[in-house]
Amino acid sequence: MTERTEAQHTEKMKKRQAAHNRIVASKTVEKGLLIVHTGPGKGKTSAALGMAVRAIGHGKKVGVVQFVKGAMQTGEKAVFDRFPDLIEFKPMGEGFTWDTQDRARDIAVARLAWEEVKRMIADTRYAMVIADELNIVLRYDYLPLDEVVEALAAKPAMTHVIVTGRNAPQALIDMADLVTEMTLVKHPFRDQGVKAQAGIEF
Amino acid sequence: MTERTEAQHTEKMKKRQAAHNRIVASKTVEKGLLIVHTGPGKGKTSAALGMAVRAIGHGKKVGVVQFVKGAMQTGEKAVFDRFPDLIEFKPMGEGFTWDTQDRARDIAVARLAWEEVKRMIADTRYAMVIADELNIVLRYDYLPLDEVVEALAAKPAMTHVIVTGRNAPQALIDMADLVTEMTLVKHPFRDQGVKAQAGIEF
Repeated sequence: MTERTEAQHTEKMKKRQAAHNRIVASKTVEKGLLIVHTGPGKGKTSAALGMAVRAIGHGKKVGVVQFVKGAMQTGEKAVFDRFPDLIEFKPMGEGFTWDTQDRARDIAVARLAWEEVKRMIADTRYAMVIADELNIVLRYDYLPLDEVVEALAAKPAMTHVIVTGRNAPQALIDMADLVTEMTLVKHPFRDQGVKAQAGIEF
Repeated sequence: MTERTEAQHTEKMKKRQAAHNRIVASKTVEKGLLIVHTGPGKGKTSAALGMAVRAIGHGKKVGVVQFVKGAMQTGEKAVFDRFPDLIEFKPMGEGFTWDTQDRARDIAVARLAWEEVKRMIADTRYAMVIADELNIVLRYDYLPLDEVVEALAAKPAMTHVIVTGRNAPQALIDMADLVTEMTLVKHPFRDQGVKAQAGIEF
């Protein structure tokens, strides 16, 4: 590359930096966010777990309630159990609804998990609360949507709440601050007969 | 709910379970995956970090090289530094290219980071290698795409490699086993003037 184009590159990047700085300067609000990870792609739960890692790394207290996972020993639980002062990690599910085959029991399990989420949200010592796969429970009408929306709308101003699961109800999307849809471009389960593997799916 | 519909629910779930079990039984392949997280939405890096958590929780060794992040102390680094035997976490970037304003230096930094990724991939003790924001470096042509594709194609069979960053090159998407596009549905930066916050963005 000639000296001239190097200088052009620097000039262009200076302009880009100035534009970036103007944007950053205009963003001054700090607030607890209601975040939704939905869509048919992968990464909804793992992105929430990544945020939990970031939060506890900054010394913030995190609560995690898993609505589907329960019985299985997961990698995330083994790690988070090493930080008992910073993260309360509660797998409260009993598996997929086709495993339990008992609707009344599924509803009771969802209720217990939801009460934990409500307790954590109400307690301002938690900087972040993750309701993992709550959308699935809502999809099956195991919890009243109105009650969930009401509790989330009343969350403390600085608390981040992350809700995951495919098929997020529209009411939740409407009220959220940040919604990411994970879209499936290519999936080895479907295409290649690859099974769920430790470190990837659990 | 009447007893009859409870029985119907159980019957339906039994069928769903049987279908699910058939699908699971047909998936027998275990292999290292090439995974790409791309798209304009959030969660690309944090989903990779979540997978790193799962992997180390199962006692697997993970290597992480960050191509853009470097100077800033992140939450993830503080946590992962607590597991020195299981995870090698290397923020090797020097910020965004508009911060350095020096193309030759950006290329040299990308080269150093890429050599680390190659070393980790070649070493079969690493069960998972994460090349965080590699797509950004490729987008700017700071590394030859051919060289990257060649190295990824030659990865050991059982090693998982995760590449993140928006604008993944088509060649990478074509060769990947699992591609997730994070789509932006709603973003508080854009809509509400919310700034980057600890525990969410870093």
